[in-house]
Amino acid sequence: MALASTDEKNVALLTAAELLVERAAEILDANARDLAAAEADGMAASAVDRLRLTEARIDGMAGGLRQVAALPDPVGDVLDGTRRPNGLEIRRVRVPLGVVAVIYENRPNVTSDAAGICVKAGNAALLRGSGSALHSNRAVADVLRDGMVKAGLPADAVLLVDDVSHEAAVEVMQLTEYVDCLIPRGGHALIQSIRDNATVPVVIDGDGNCHVYVDERADPEVALRIAVNAKTSRTSVCNAAESLIVHEAMADAFLPRVAEALAAQGVELVGNDGARQRVPTMGAATDDDFGREYLDLKLSVAVVPSLDAAIDHVNRFGTGHTEAIVTTDLAHAQRFTNEVDAAVVIVNASTRFTDGERFGFGAEIGISTQKLHARGPMGLRELTTYKYVVWGDGQIVE
Amino acid sequence: MALASTDEKNVALLTAAELLVERAAEILDANARDLAAAEADGMAASAVDRLRLTEARIDGMAGGLRQVAALPDPVGDVLDGTRRPNGLEIRRVRVPLGVVAVIYENRPNVTSDAAGICVKAGNAALLRGSGSALHSNRAVADVLRDGMVKAGLPADAVLLVDDVSHEAAVEVMQLTEYVDCLIPRGGHALIQSIRDNATVPVVIDGDGNCHVYVDERADPEVALRIAVNAKTSRTSVCNAAESLIVHEAMADAFLPRVAEALAAQGVELVGNDGARQRVPTMGAATDDDFGREYLDLKLSVAVVPSLDAAIDHVNRFGTGHTEAIVTTDLAHAQRFTNEVDAAVVIVNASTRFTDGERFGFGAEIGISTQKLHARGPMGLRELTTYKYVVWGDGQIVE
Repeated sequence: MALASTDEKNVALLTAAELLVERAAEILDANARDLAAAEADGMAASAVDRLRLTEARIDGMAGGLRQVAALPDPVGDVLDGTRRPNGLEIRRVRVPLGVVAVIYENRPNVTSDAAGICVKAGNAALLRGSGSALHSNRAVADVLRDGMVKAGLPADAVLLVDDVSHEAAVEVMQLTEYVDCLIPRGGHALIQSIRDNATVPVVIDGDGNCHVYVDERADPEVALRIAVNAKTSRTSVCNAAESLIVHEAMADAFLPRVAEALAAQGVELVGNDGARQRVPTMGAATDDDFGREYLDLKLSVAVVPSLDAAIDHVNRFGTGHTEAIVTTDLAHAQRFTNEVDAAVVIVNASTRFTDGERFGFGAEIGISTQKLHARGPMGLRELTTYKYVVWGDGQIVE
Repeated sequence: MALASTDEKNVALLTAAELLVERAAEILDANARDLAAAEADGMAASAVDRLRLTEARIDGMAGGLRQVAALPDPVGDVLDGTRRPNGLEIRRVRVPLGVVAVIYENRPNVTSDAAGICVKAGNAALLRGSGSALHSNRAVADVLRDGMVKAGLPADAVLLVDDVSHEAAVEVMQLTEYVDCLIPRGGHALIQSIRDNATVPVVIDGDGNCHVYVDERADPEVALRIAVNAKTSRTSVCNAAESLIVHEAMADAFLPRVAEALAAQGVELVGNDGARQRVPTMGAATDDDFGREYLDLKLSVAVVPSLDAAIDHVNRFGTGHTEAIVTTDLAHAQRFTNEVDAAVVIVNASTRFTDGERFGFGAEIGISTQKLHARGPMGLRELTTYKYVVWGDGQIVE
């Protein structure tokens, strides 16, 4: 796979996209079996919805593969290079990671999305979805494998683990001889299991307890727009705001307004004393609230006496995902971007922008909240590593 | 530490360098206590030598700190950036990793070397040396901490764990709330313990089972020089060659010559049938030999029928460290560099060049044999991560 040409990889992806549409009936059939079992098991309606494929969703998966095929191939890029005084020419060249394992939950479209981006970056994808989506995942993986073969590439570059036991997932986490990088996509239980069991290198796609800080020098109209957008435009995603921090100089005028706007969207607020003083209908927020990723129509609110206190709060309760400040003051913006420790720090825009598509990556396999290897949205580039290629003409060391 | 200016960090390092020399007597005194205990415990002479500090070695440590102080500060570099169609300006900015833990064995100079490079990259260093070097490490760490304080930086940015129990080491490996990156520097037992116990992100500085492949189109003089240099210039290091692979078209003429040259340096050879046919005095090599990092005056030798067989052998037995080909054939060199999976692939030069100093990094904290985050020699750059800094003017998502 590492030696596959850009053309071969693109043909595989475009062929798979065609086959997904052609064989949609077969995939929907497999999906119907998963849906029937899920409903019989009493799966929650929202989970059933994530499990459900439709012709439109299959078209979306095919479109995703076409989009990845259209992206530049990152493999072979020379990152930098030097010529040493002894004449050695040292180049750092981008190469695929190798085998990328993805453990994911429920949504069968991840089978196609993850495989597509892995393959484009020259990797083999080892996919382990959840039992509830097994028939759907198998049908989708079969199509992708056919695409690989039709392009002259190995079918096993897309390999679905179809043992859906917990033990098999743990085994994937410990394949140190084979797996170069494991990317988990799922909830707390999965991440905890990864932390407990994984011995292979991991990039954690973790929680997003994202804050919007409204500075004393914020434009209140901009702050209102951003706070409402960050909280309500989509609540179930990791880049949604979970906490609003307001400087006390802004609190009297701003908090009642934003509370009203959020309430109009059905958002429940809980706050600290300073916040409840300004909006008495608000419930009390505990530290647990401030540390919580609600993923729901709920928001914690803190009034703080200073920029320092805001930064401290964000660094204490944040999860290193995305933090935003709204301010017109340059020095405040600079202090916030320098001192807040997160993958993405945003000035005067919604936290919802932390996303591979919105960053212009063309495709995304997740958002890293760790510091090693990749931070923030991960696209094709983050699915590669590098090797040093050194050319000499007989040099030896002294 | 992440906000420390370049000047502050440099002052800390230069002050520590001065203090190391000033307080050499105190450090040598502490070292004498470690040496006495080591000798009483019957420690092997080579290990006692690694433990021993002298005025010259302390001068060397001070020189290392000065050298790191003179290097450009990587923090704040803008790696790349874009302006999105909606006007968002996205910049990827280099920032420190945070807390870098280093678990190391025996050599007390690592205390100073590791702390220096961590501090220059804006990190706090959590150092855990071995019990046998505890007094020496404490004396060196005290000096470094004084240097930090004199520069107005926190002493605890250089923190020595002085509980030398196995349990304390395991605790360091599991400080997921505090440690952003753990770099182990030591032998198999340490690496295995890391694999078994670490829950923090790790960069493995692993074995180097490095090969020199002499192609059918090699210049025999160049091949001879490189093979002898790679094996014998220093045997105890990870970038020394442990295995020599020779194309059968070269074997009749080349193998007896290289065997003689290596024997003159005291190197014991073991080989496969093809090698023993050409050099009958050679012992038989097992797969275990081909997989072994001898770190000694011993070399495994294989005669292979083709470049393909050579690449297969290297990828099968190599540890992803450094692999060299000697050839005058461009296509062969290109196939080797493309198809061999290692951190460093070298054409016509000694494997011994894989080293931060020789690569021009100015300082090195280890050589990564994993693919995630850093591969090959790790310098200041590899002790950093990045954050995305995004500037908007009120953008929200649709």
